[in-house]
Amino acid sequence: MNRVIIGICGGTGSGKTTLAQKIYNEFNACATLIGMDSYYKSDPSIPLVERAKCNYDHPDAFETELLIKHLKELKKGNAVDVPQYDYCNHLRKNECIRVESKQIIIIEGILLLENIKLCNMLDIKIYVDTDADVRILRRIMRDVNERGRSLDSVVNQYQSTVKPMHEQFVEPYKRRADIIVPQGGHNAVALDVIKSCINHKLQEK
Amino acid sequence: MNRVIIGICGGTGSGKTTLAQKIYNEFNACATLIGMDSYYKSDPSIPLVERAKCNYDHPDAFETELLIKHLKELKKGNAVDVPQYDYCNHLRKNECIRVESKQIIIIEGILLLENIKLCNMLDIKIYVDTDADVRILRRIMRDVNERGRSLDSVVNQYQSTVKPMHEQFVEPYKRRADIIVPQGGHNAVALDVIKSCINHKLQEK
Repeated sequence: MNRVIIGICGGTGSGKTTLAQKIYNEFNACATLIGMDSYYKSDPSIPLVERAKCNYDHPDAFETELLIKHLKELKKGNAVDVPQYDYCNHLRKNECIRVESKQIIIIEGILLLENIKLCNMLDIKIYVDTDADVRILRRIMRDVNERGRSLDSVVNQYQSTVKPMHEQFVEPYKRRADIIVPQGGHNAVALDVIKSCINHKLQEK
Repeated sequence: MNRVIIGICGGTGSGKTTLAQKIYNEFNACATLIGMDSYYKSDPSIPLVERAKCNYDHPDAFETELLIKHLKELKKGNAVDVPQYDYCNHLRKNECIRVESKQIIIIEGILLLENIKLCNMLDIKIYVDTDADVRILRRIMRDVNERGRSLDSVVNQYQSTVKPMHEQFVEPYKRRADIIVPQGGHNAVALDVIKSCINHKLQEK
């Protein structure tokens, strides 16, 4: 059985997770969904107050080599143990989640296209393109309302790291995508186009 | 029989015609391909020297109502008589081309998404996104080498109308697209995605 890796990239608040989830729901039994955020590096020797200040939007924040290794295993049909990340303590949890290999392997994350080795592993590269103002509004609503963060801290983080890292490591690699989806996860035609393509690939095998 | 209209938009030199042609070739017997350029307005009462100075990148240069009428007829299954345009004389030719309705109706043009009535007729809206420098280089090569125009005239036209009209009437309507195809007509994965979606729609009917 040949397996297809679908990569969904885009800035914070772009709707990439929504799109990834919709694709996943569509193919449920045949699909597995992984978030690149699970592969954040973890260093308990750094004090929490310092860990909180780290730049989590820089490629160095991720253990990308482990993600690549896991995608290779999934592609071969082997299960992997995906780390879990504790965002409150900025540390990897002790327990992993066992992820079985499926025909459709969906991976979503802001920096998927930046790392060329990772990028080259993706059979279909999708970039979700959403205006920066819409993205920051979504992030504010999520972080303030759902994650209990202060408006000030969200705005400070956005200006100091999220925005500059987006401009340096996310946006420029849009050109590596195979298709760009405007208007995030609520673009029904784009979802239909992607679904058809995956169905076609499933029938091919 | 339900018919699908595929609209392919993008700036000059973006590769939209190449993509449209590739899709057309793929579905040959089931598809028809129309260029929006065939619907340039024509006014023989204006002297040639004046006609040559017209702004051919502005929405007013097109008889969009006729194109919309034709798409409606094709969608209903009726054949239409598509005008032919003589670029040397900047006039519509006397003869039309009879175009039969097919299951897949492909229309390509720079201003497809700008006119909301036209845009709403398209079942799949594709925008071919290519860097401006790549586009102007392609246009220069085409107009100078294939159409025998002087470099000066191509550059003048580009600066005086093509570029400002692109920024006003083409680029801003990218957000109306369902999917955006980076790297023009040579993006194999995007072509595959679009083909799969069309195949899926054909099987649905």
